[in-house]
Amino acid sequence: MNTLGTHFKITSFGESHGSHVGCVIDGCPAGLAIDMDAIQQAVDRRKTNQSSFTSERKEKDIVDIISGLYQGITLGSPICILIRNEDAQSKDYEALKNVFRPSHADYTNQQKYGIRDERGGGRSSIRITAPLVAAGAIAKQLVQYYSSMEVTAFVRKIGSVALLDTDYHQLDFTAIEQNTVRCPDEVTAKKMIQHIEETKVSGDTLGGVIECVVRNMVVGLGEPIFGKLQSMLANAMMSINTVKGFEFGDGFDNANLKGSESNDAFTVENDLITTTTNHSGGIQGGISNGQDIVFRLAFKPISSISQKQNTVDNQHQKIELQIQGRHDTCAVPRAVPIVEAYTYLVLADAYILSKLSKI
Amino acid sequence: MNTLGTHFKITSFGESHGSHVGCVIDGCPAGLAIDMDAIQQAVDRRKTNQSSFTSERKEKDIVDIISGLYQGITLGSPICILIRNEDAQSKDYEALKNVFRPSHADYTNQQKYGIRDERGGGRSSIRITAPLVAAGAIAKQLVQYYSSMEVTAFVRKIGSVALLDTDYHQLDFTAIEQNTVRCPDEVTAKKMIQHIEETKVSGDTLGGVIECVVRNMVVGLGEPIFGKLQSMLANAMMSINTVKGFEFGDGFDNANLKGSESNDAFTVENDLITTTTNHSGGIQGGISNGQDIVFRLAFKPISSISQKQNTVDNQHQKIELQIQGRHDTCAVPRAVPIVEAYTYLVLADAYILSKLSKI
Amino acid sequence: MNTLGTHFKITSFGESHGSHVGCVIDGCPAGLAIDMDAIQQAVDRRKTNQSSFTSERKEKDIVDIISGLYQGITLGSPICILIRNEDAQSKDYEALKNVFRPSHADYTNQQKYGIRDERGGGRSSIRITAPLVAAGAIAKQLVQYYSSMEVTAFVRKIGSVALLDTDYHQLDFTAIEQNTVRCPDEVTAKKMIQHIEETKVSGDTLGGVIECVVRNMVVGLGEPIFGKLQSMLANAMMSINTVKGFEFGDGFDNANLKGSESNDAFTVENDLITTTTNHSGGIQGGISNGQDIVFRLAFKPISSISQKQNTVDNQHQKIELQIQGRHDTCAVPRAVPIVEAYTYLVLADAYILSKLSKI
Amino acid sequence: MNTLGTHFKITSFGESHGSHVGCVIDGCPAGLAIDMDAIQQAVDRRKTNQSSFTSERKEKDIVDIISGLYQGITLGSPICILIRNEDAQSKDYEALKNVFRPSHADYTNQQKYGIRDERGGGRSSIRITAPLVAAGAIAKQLVQYYSSMEVTAFVRKIGSVALLDTDYHQLDFTAIEQNTVRCPDEVTAKKMIQHIEETKVSGDTLGGVIECVVRNMVVGLGEPIFGKLQSMLANAMMSINTVKGFEFGDGFDNANLKGSESNDAFTVENDLITTTTNHSGGIQGGISNGQDIVFRLAFKPISSISQKQNTVDNQHQKIELQIQGRHDTCAVPRAVPIVEAYTYLVLADAYILSKLSKI
Repeated sequence: MNTLGTHFKITSFGESHGSHVGCVIDGCPAGLAIDMDAIQQAVDRRKTNQSSFTSERKEKDIVDIISGLYQGITLGSPICILIRNEDAQSKDYEALKNVFRPSHADYTNQQKYGIRDERGGGRSSIRITAPLVAAGAIAKQLVQYYSSMEVTAFVRKIGSVALLDTDYHQLDFTAIEQNTVRCPDEVTAKKMIQHIEETKVSGDTLGGVIECVVRNMVVGLGEPIFGKLQSMLANAMMSINTVKGFEFGDGFDNANLKGSESNDAFTVENDLITTTTNHSGGIQGGISNGQDIVFRLAFKPISSISQKQNTVDNQHQKIELQIQGRHDTCAVPRAVPIVEAYTYLVLADAYILSKLSKI
Repeated sequence: MNTLGTHFKITSFGESHGSHVGCVIDGCPAGLAIDMDAIQQAVDRRKTNQSSFTSERKEKDIVDIISGLYQGITLGSPICILIRNEDAQSKDYEALKNVFRPSHADYTNQQKYGIRDERGGGRSSIRITAPLVAAGAIAKQLVQYYSSMEVTAFVRKIGSVALLDTDYHQLDFTAIEQNTVRCPDEVTAKKMIQHIEETKVSGDTLGGVIECVVRNMVVGLGEPIFGKLQSMLANAMMSINTVKGFEFGDGFDNANLKGSESNDAFTVENDLITTTTNHSGGIQGGISNGQDIVFRLAFKPISSISQKQNTVDNQHQKIELQIQGRHDTCAVPRAVPIVEAYTYLVLADAYILSKLSKI
Repeated sequence: MNTLGTHFKITSFGESHGSHVGCVIDGCPAGLAIDMDAIQQAVDRRKTNQSSFTSERKEKDIVDIISGLYQGITLGSPICILIRNEDAQSKDYEALKNVFRPSHADYTNQQKYGIRDERGGGRSSIRITAPLVAAGAIAKQLVQYYSSMEVTAFVRKIGSVALLDTDYHQLDFTAIEQNTVRCPDEVTAKKMIQHIEETKVSGDTLGGVIECVVRNMVVGLGEPIFGKLQSMLANAMMSINTVKGFEFGDGFDNANLKGSESNDAFTVENDLITTTTNHSGGIQGGISNGQDIVFRLAFKPISSISQKQNTVDNQHQKIELQIQGRHDTCAVPRAVPIVEAYTYLVLADAYILSKLSKI
Repeated sequence: MNTLGTHFKITSFGESHGSHVGCVIDGCPAGLAIDMDAIQQAVDRRKTNQSSFTSERKEKDIVDIISGLYQGITLGSPICILIRNEDAQSKDYEALKNVFRPSHADYTNQQKYGIRDERGGGRSSIRITAPLVAAGAIAKQLVQYYSSMEVTAFVRKIGSVALLDTDYHQLDFTAIEQNTVRCPDEVTAKKMIQHIEETKVSGDTLGGVIECVVRNMVVGLGEPIFGKLQSMLANAMMSINTVKGFEFGDGFDNANLKGSESNDAFTVENDLITTTTNHSGGIQGGISNGQDIVFRLAFKPISSISQKQNTVDNQHQKIELQIQGRHDTCAVPRAVPIVEAYTYLVLADAYILSKLSKI
């Protein structure tokens, strides 16, 4: 129930205000030399308190790997990753103990389990992704041991500010990390930041769209029926908080196209089979065809706005709520490293499985 | 690799021109009286040769359940469903043996497995969904034994003809089956049919959008992290041929909204907690909140157009291809019962799992 | 619930008097040329009506593979195996509909499921192993594509007649199939047959012991903690009807030994590491060490004796029962091909998994 | 690969001389009040340094649960259990870095993974069972919330000293913990202790037999084909270091019995169906019948003897080895709480699954 993957398996554990959040990777082959710094850097990219519009919760998020490595090399045994929760302010949540915040997971968790840890959102906090990003960094190292696959995600849209007319080939991916919204177009990035700042003042929040590209893609990842590569990706991405939509290749635009417009003609270049276009987003029949994987994710605005809202408590009393605490105004930029990490988790799983396809 | 679900598990098998297609359901509880007619009717809804724009392949698609039932009652043992392939015209595919049709699964399957059954698309044929629709009909009977959950899918858009401004509450779901495009608005349906007919003449194909709604939803289905209800749905839906996008609730429109616009306020009606709006599409924190589940799927046009296309063969020679055979011009209406079936498969799995959430 | 294995997965289905028994293999790599005759021969070895002491039910047991093969080569897709039930005499069981036969699965199935198919034992019939033996024959072909591993099982003991003092190295395995009890020692075999014949006359049944040896064993199969090779074997073997004990290497005799007596000294022969003894039965720390795998299974006498017995019915009434129908007096010889098949299933699964151990 | 169970799932991690050993329980329902003291007591029972013949490694083995609980109640989220490794003396193992100890897992791990953590046996140390015993204590609390099932294991045999003629009904289970060998018969226990002491002097080790009984058994646990209760038990028990044999009910003695002797007649007592004997060991057709579950395990002597032994190193050189360090002379008594814990893990898993058998 808390595991992602079938061969490179990640089991998540931990609550937002418990002592740690963590995960166990089972299925990482032995013999991989692990770059610990790269893991820490990946986790640092998703930290809070990095900009004016992210939560002020201050977490060191130091990655501690307590098993599965010996002298920096994977043993083939499970890799347990721990990250300590340090700056939890559980008192902020006492008033929320019996309240169901609108569009939060409070009500559904309470109904499903009959109990919930209200502190910091408990299990439903975005904080539980921190060790999963660390796992993704290990997946990246595994995937890049075997291949040159390279995952890059960036922000396409925040609220009403979008970078929609530019194909990713025309963007400079090295510019992504040069602004706090992780949009590779500087002009658009500035508008996004301004949009967020204005929204923050009004006590409101914003969503957006992330695009993710996998270059140097290996042919043959994904299964033909269930376990299609798009199924694996959609499954993983939908587990990220606030993701509400997934499309790959031409996605929802396909409905406007005819077959003659959306088909990708095969051709041969340098004696290699390739396609002249990539409407398919790199996947045909559930299996990667070697072209870039391209997908986009829709994020809703986060639910913790600071405006007053109508809601109810667990005694079925209507109340007016004003959420306190430290919250992001827009979490989409922080989701970029999460999207990349989850993509690597999927690629690692699909890659390992693909080794078993034929004798 | 060919199994969907963790508790109500469906394992698919069969190729398009083999003797049968089929599946095994493992995890259906004992004691359920099965309505065989309802299963056959569900399968009949996805058959070919139902309209002027679907494939002329004539399949009786008679559902044969060879295990797991005794005197019409489930035994708790695996239910094996077989459907015989009858009108296969394998000769149509001989010319395609060494050819990679554009945007089909030919190339990727060949690369992944080193072998493929080219007849009728082999394993990647939409035909393999026939027994899965039968499985979905059993899932429906299970789900409706336990609850009143009711799944309805319909066509929102075909090519450039869309029914986009009408909320589903204003539509008459009983009208869905009254036209061949399964669009509940008669005027729009006629335009869609005309659009398809015109496209057929030009040797081209069309995609579209399906919306699916689950009413009378049970609270508490779906898991908080991995296995979120949207993850289960997206995973299942992405396994349907030609689906390229999935969104639920406000989906991609979320990117345009502020938190104050997308939050669903809780309120109390008849002493029951409910929400005043349903931007969340019935899922909060991965768990159903009792509101209607609402999601939409983007379908690309099917790849088998009858226009000439450039492609290559397995000797890396560029060739010009004109696909023969019997193909749908627009498969979206036929996908409606598939979407409903897969939704029931997900609901059955999630429902069973939800029984284990608390002591 | 009805699946064995994690990578080479077998899902069983079918009841004894339904139309078919069968199974689906998921995870067989593409590209394996299948020898259909070898499969049929393996299944024929477990058939009824082969000797004076086995059931007279006459089943052709013709193996029908309806998916996953193309022109005799595995496609990498699921392989569905069907065997038709032909000589079912369901009327024999009508009287048993409400009766719980002693030491049968009638009572437990009824309690667990609230329903059971009483005809021929339903799902709990040994008949469901027929397609699993076919699956084992495919597993054998896969395993022997990759390696020279060779599984041989034989009867060590039937009732009070045992072949206990002879190490398997001294036995002629080619003699196993030369008598109906599958004991490679001709003198012992004759005593066993006589013992069975005498027991049959008295309306009673016999159990026994099977030993199974895997030669030319690959090093590195099995996992260190859960999924130890002995766990996989014990798990599989315990699923065979009437098996009550499993031991490997020195097994229960270990309790009589000291460490200095049970340790296997490593040595080097022809520059290969080997052991001077094999008390370990070829497994150390859950992982094969390249020595022969050796294990033994205890079988209880089958429960269907023709003597009168005291029992109860589902109305909690005490009754006297005399079982009619066609039953084995001793099923142990028929279990030999089942044990071999299940061993190959385990080896195939362990072999495939072992390919993922290291980068 | 490192997970036991399908619904109440335990994933093990950690190496003997890493910072921690631990496990994650996924699938424990919400709402269970956890008795932490009972968990600690269970773990304390398997500790080293409890008698003259167990390892002198001094471990506090303090159980730390870092997730899944809130105010002492299970949340339904994964429960991560950590135990710190404190008294590791890694230097003892430096000399063993390149040596393959006879009948240890050194050679097989090295071959399988190409790397191993030689310190304290790494992943193959019995130490990894400590958190699993804690998990078993949670499983016990879950099982006993739902039922009165009670697991008791005790030592039947150590080396040549056995308690074989006394049925467990005649034994006083409260006496088990009153001696260091965990044999409920005081006279036999003394002989066992003396036998161990003498063996220790000679630098040798001893194995033995443990019997385990589950009383107040629930009817209906276990699945009919794969996942039989005996399969689940054998699978779990075989994962305990040095277990070489498993039998239930009459086990290997069955081979000496006739059907009329091994069948258990059903009868009715107080309007409940029961059996007059329990040759079946409480399981019929893979499913518990409500009688006591009874099984026995054979343990080999542990491999770390202090006598000189012949072996080889990783350069294929023959060497003479004398193992240093702190080792048990007989680990069978310490295995008693492990056997009980693993039995509870199996019962919890089987119990949860049984809730889904029928509608």
